[in-house]
Amino acid sequence: MSNFGFLRMRVVNPYEAGYREARSAVGASSVLTSAEEFASVGEAVADCTLVIGTTAVGERELHHRVKALPEAAKIIRKRLESSNVALLFGSERVGLSNEELSHCHWLLRIPTRVEHRSMNLGQAVAVCMYELARDSKRAAPQGRVTKKTLPAAQLKPATAGDIERISKTLLESLHACGYLTPRSGKTPEEKVRRLLRRHKLTANDADLWLSMLGQILYRLKSKSS
Amino acid sequence: MSNFGFLRMRVVNPYEAGYREARSAVGASSVLTSAEEFASVGEAVADCTLVIGTTAVGERELHHRVKALPEAAKIIRKRLESSNVALLFGSERVGLSNEELSHCHWLLRIPTRVEHRSMNLGQAVAVCMYELARDSKRAAPQGRVTKKTLPAAQLKPATAGDIERISKTLLESLHACGYLTPRSGKTPEEKVRRLLRRHKLTANDADLWLSMLGQILYRLKSKSS
Repeated sequence: MSNFGFLRMRVVNPYEAGYREARSAVGASSVLTSAEEFASVGEAVADCTLVIGTTAVGERELHHRVKALPEAAKIIRKRLESSNVALLFGSERVGLSNEELSHCHWLLRIPTRVEHRSMNLGQAVAVCMYELARDSKRAAPQGRVTKKTLPAAQLKPATAGDIERISKTLLESLHACGYLTPRSGKTPEEKVRRLLRRHKLTANDADLWLSMLGQILYRLKSKSS
Repeated sequence: MSNFGFLRMRVVNPYEAGYREARSAVGASSVLTSAEEFASVGEAVADCTLVIGTTAVGERELHHRVKALPEAAKIIRKRLESSNVALLFGSERVGLSNEELSHCHWLLRIPTRVEHRSMNLGQAVAVCMYELARDSKRAAPQGRVTKKTLPAAQLKPATAGDIERISKTLLESLHACGYLTPRSGKTPEEKVRRLLRRHKLTANDADLWLSMLGQILYRLKSKSS
């Protein structure tokens, strides 16, 4: 990350001992010492308007669109001009869980040969950062994200935090009306999260959904009590 | 290397103990188990028509031309069509010696920010292999980059009829919960219709929305009667 000018690492639920040790090691890059810790993926990506998961798995097993890294990087660079983007890496051993993936708008895959898809985590991160910095004027001087003027308000994308609030309100409504039950488990919840993330909501869309669903939920609850 | 389809590793004078151990480790990729050993750089690159060193050092301290990786990769790919090319990596700690560099036609450097040039060896190799395989037809057959498409049903766009049914169910719910009243007029209704049309729903998305909103509406109505 530091090589290519990406200086903001966020860690979710790190393995305490190892993390503390790495962080305090002599020569630990400032990326590591200034990393921010979060208890959940939802909190870690709350101020991002685009959340992208990384995967080595073939698309058929997934519920998300998958883009190859060079194409993905173009989209990410563009979005970085106006807002925060999160690139989500899972643990080396098991990758991202379905719950973690449900926070993602889409996934990126590093093009590898099919016979050997799974990559070392540090190498995968390095390759992604290299591609993001590649050809970009941005990386040359400092690795700074240039803040351009924001697009018109109605085009401003919703943040992950907005979308998570909509997801929660919708899910609560679905429980209140009996569409979901305590025994439904995680799968339908993840389905709803993915659905909302596919819709490419603007900040205004998010406001509208939240106010509509808020009122629906209020009424469902007051009726049932 | 193996991820990107480069299967011929040659090692010069490896540290015996560590190398033997790595090579015999369970799961060691075939790149490692089939690596060829040489006593000198000269012997290792003898059958190559182009030898390129890798460096993190600024050009002024070197006697070689230095090319940035994207440019270097083009030249390497071209040459690989007709003969062997060697990409030479030094030890992580000290890099390539002057003697080793003297075997090189020129050097390549991975573009990093100037404040942090030195890279982890495994990450540097991964980035170089990625760039060499990037956009290359060569990588396609052997190290195939699958351009997968989602199952047709998942991409099939929702029909206008689907979207209208969702709009109606949502609007009816909004009336039932008091968000809209008979005096609200057409404007909020149109806002909701436009919202749903902006979401570019697939046929599957439409089914999901319709079943969720259908249940919400059913419950709102049954509660209020």
